[in-house]
Amino acid sequence: MPANNLKIDSERLLGRLKQLGQIGRTDSGGVTRLALTDEDKAGRDLVGGWMKAAGLTVQTDKIGNLFAVRAGAEAIPGVMSGSHIDTVIDGGRLDGAYGVLAALEVMETLNDAGVSTQRPLIMAVFTNEEGVRFQPDMMGSLAYVGGMSVDSVLATEDREGRCIGTELKRIGYEGDMDCGELKPHSFVELHIEQGPVLEQTGRVIGAVEYVQGISWTEIEITGTSNHAGTTPMELRRDAGYCAGEVSTYVRALARDMGRSHVATVGSLELKPNAINVVPGYAKLTVDMRNTDNKQLSDAESLLEAFLKELEVRERVKIYARRLVRFDPVDFDQRLVGVIEQQASKLELSSWRMISGAGHDAQMMSRVCAAAMIFVPSRGGISHNPDEHSEDDHLVAGANVLLHTMLSLSET
Amino acid sequence: MPANNLKIDSERLLGRLKQLGQIGRTDSGGVTRLALTDEDKAGRDLVGGWMKAAGLTVQTDKIGNLFAVRAGAEAIPGVMSGSHIDTVIDGGRLDGAYGVLAALEVMETLNDAGVSTQRPLIMAVFTNEEGVRFQPDMMGSLAYVGGMSVDSVLATEDREGRCIGTELKRIGYEGDMDCGELKPHSFVELHIEQGPVLEQTGRVIGAVEYVQGISWTEIEITGTSNHAGTTPMELRRDAGYCAGEVSTYVRALARDMGRSHVATVGSLELKPNAINVVPGYAKLTVDMRNTDNKQLSDAESLLEAFLKELEVRERVKIYARRLVRFDPVDFDQRLVGVIEQQASKLELSSWRMISGAGHDAQMMSRVCAAAMIFVPSRGGISHNPDEHSEDDHLVAGANVLLHTMLSLSET
Repeated sequence: MPANNLKIDSERLLGRLKQLGQIGRTDSGGVTRLALTDEDKAGRDLVGGWMKAAGLTVQTDKIGNLFAVRAGAEAIPGVMSGSHIDTVIDGGRLDGAYGVLAALEVMETLNDAGVSTQRPLIMAVFTNEEGVRFQPDMMGSLAYVGGMSVDSVLATEDREGRCIGTELKRIGYEGDMDCGELKPHSFVELHIEQGPVLEQTGRVIGAVEYVQGISWTEIEITGTSNHAGTTPMELRRDAGYCAGEVSTYVRALARDMGRSHVATVGSLELKPNAINVVPGYAKLTVDMRNTDNKQLSDAESLLEAFLKELEVRERVKIYARRLVRFDPVDFDQRLVGVIEQQASKLELSSWRMISGAGHDAQMMSRVCAAAMIFVPSRGGISHNPDEHSEDDHLVAGANVLLHTMLSLSET
Repeated sequence: MPANNLKIDSERLLGRLKQLGQIGRTDSGGVTRLALTDEDKAGRDLVGGWMKAAGLTVQTDKIGNLFAVRAGAEAIPGVMSGSHIDTVIDGGRLDGAYGVLAALEVMETLNDAGVSTQRPLIMAVFTNEEGVRFQPDMMGSLAYVGGMSVDSVLATEDREGRCIGTELKRIGYEGDMDCGELKPHSFVELHIEQGPVLEQTGRVIGAVEYVQGISWTEIEITGTSNHAGTTPMELRRDAGYCAGEVSTYVRALARDMGRSHVATVGSLELKPNAINVVPGYAKLTVDMRNTDNKQLSDAESLLEAFLKELEVRERVKIYARRLVRFDPVDFDQRLVGVIEQQASKLELSSWRMISGAGHDAQMMSRVCAAAMIFVPSRGGISHNPDEHSEDDHLVAGANVLLHTMLSLSET
């Protein structure tokens, strides 16, 4: 069969997505497979087993990133594709897993059809993309491109004080390969959109040109815990109230900055967290994103000034720590063009777009040409058990990935 | 020694307060001795041991309230005093324990001096006054006066689903005595103020005339958890943001209602509680207190209307449940007068005042003449490891309790 007419095996891909989705499945129908937990290990074992069954050799680097190389005609830098298989708490089964299993599907489709490529093809499974258990997110790919040292990764602790080094050993995924050893020619990541744009525009394929910049801040507020009945309002140093003000402030800030800006207080903890005690301590996080780096920096400055004002006005101590800061990313325009072209050849509608979420591809763009392919998310919902993409769209995306990789492998 | 000149044994009282304060002691120097936990059992064992050593017979009722009667010359209703030994999370060592150990100290002082009284004297240790683990608070005294059935008390569950009946059995404090069997002539409770009034006025003894009304509401907000980067602000149904608005609303409400009103969001929980996920669920509590019942009801109505408006505006579902509602309480004026009189005889300055906190005495006021004695709290701080009252004030309060009980026992 000429490579031009190749199609991936849709049943195999969809079946594997369902199977992997069973690991860490929650009562609400979602998936909780946090990085380096037993569930992550079970997911790695399953995917690794499929990789081996496909005749690929799994290589693990020092921070647990998994790779498999399908040799090309020449021993030159390869075309890499992949994503992650860790999830958020009660997330969906497609986020990350789709990009990993589609990359594997590309390898197997080419094997089955006996197609050889000029460049090697490489599939990748990056450690801890979600950043829920260990911060920052996109950690595996960040370290892969040299943005974080292996030692820092291994020493990173979760809330219970367990570090990545120990957890990697515990689940048996501490590898020998140096981080970043395989230098790719290009990187293309297939992913569900996780937003409403493709659905609203009625397109099937997103050719992602940009990624929003991300700023994560952890804020600790210390006041005085005190009796909720006997403490006059004007004498309170209420850390919980201050947390509420931060929540409403970042919403107002996003409204003022317009559509390019989003802001979220996603996690919040009070102490002592009792009905009849004024909270003496609050810890919360602010997630802000913007496609414009200047605007994102402005938002950070405004938040900082607000916290200073709040600290004085409410007589509390506020300590703010930047957990994550990623500049907005421009993907490779030539690669974006190839994605559009391949979608068009497959008679699929496409749309140039921005990613609101962070992805491993943005890290890879630091060391090679990179871009992403999106498929629609129903209702734009993700990080939620109701995350859903149509089977037809999942298959279409994987076929665009197949032909994009084939095209890049000849350049 | 004539009863008029009697003084309590200050070393014994202060020593026991320190000893009891060791049980459930936290790293921060506070005390966590939640109702019906192992710590509560240890506290009960210690206090019960002292009661027995003082020659008193400990009687336990069906919900774990402890009593000891010191017989009077006549078998008529007795003068009761007491409080509780459960604490909030990381609270102080005096809250509750002071009233219990001072009542015991009164008994022992009279025993040591060989003084007999006309009426019996009764000391009481009420179950679950704080209401942190099981709601409502003041549960032991509420059920004692018939405001809650024994069955309802025993069936009440904590957040982990463990019920009071089972926990009472587990710690060995499920008694035989009917709840409310001992009918007192009068009830007087000694307690630290937990507020700043006595300190600010420079008085040593508070003669408490009124207790604020209390309204506790639990609010559950259900929105949609979604990706914090890809979900446009205008499409969000952010339960965490709504919780922040409730927090700022109740503060504004308290400001508008003036000094008689206090309001607190003391506990708050988000789900999934992850940095990069819009919270789909929030559960929080609102504690409101007012000396005027009409104003308290008005505040409840305003909060309810605000929640309805918020529900529509933010496209979330809000479910509000009243956990506790106690009307403001007027104490017995004659008894308040006796307290003032005895303070004056002991040459201690006193101040008629309002209690901002709920206390067992307000429940007892439903069945007999009741009032309270307060001593100053440093900085008005309570429900906090920094809770503190001067030893001199603790001793002074116990002496006022002694002479108030002596006076009441002759009437």
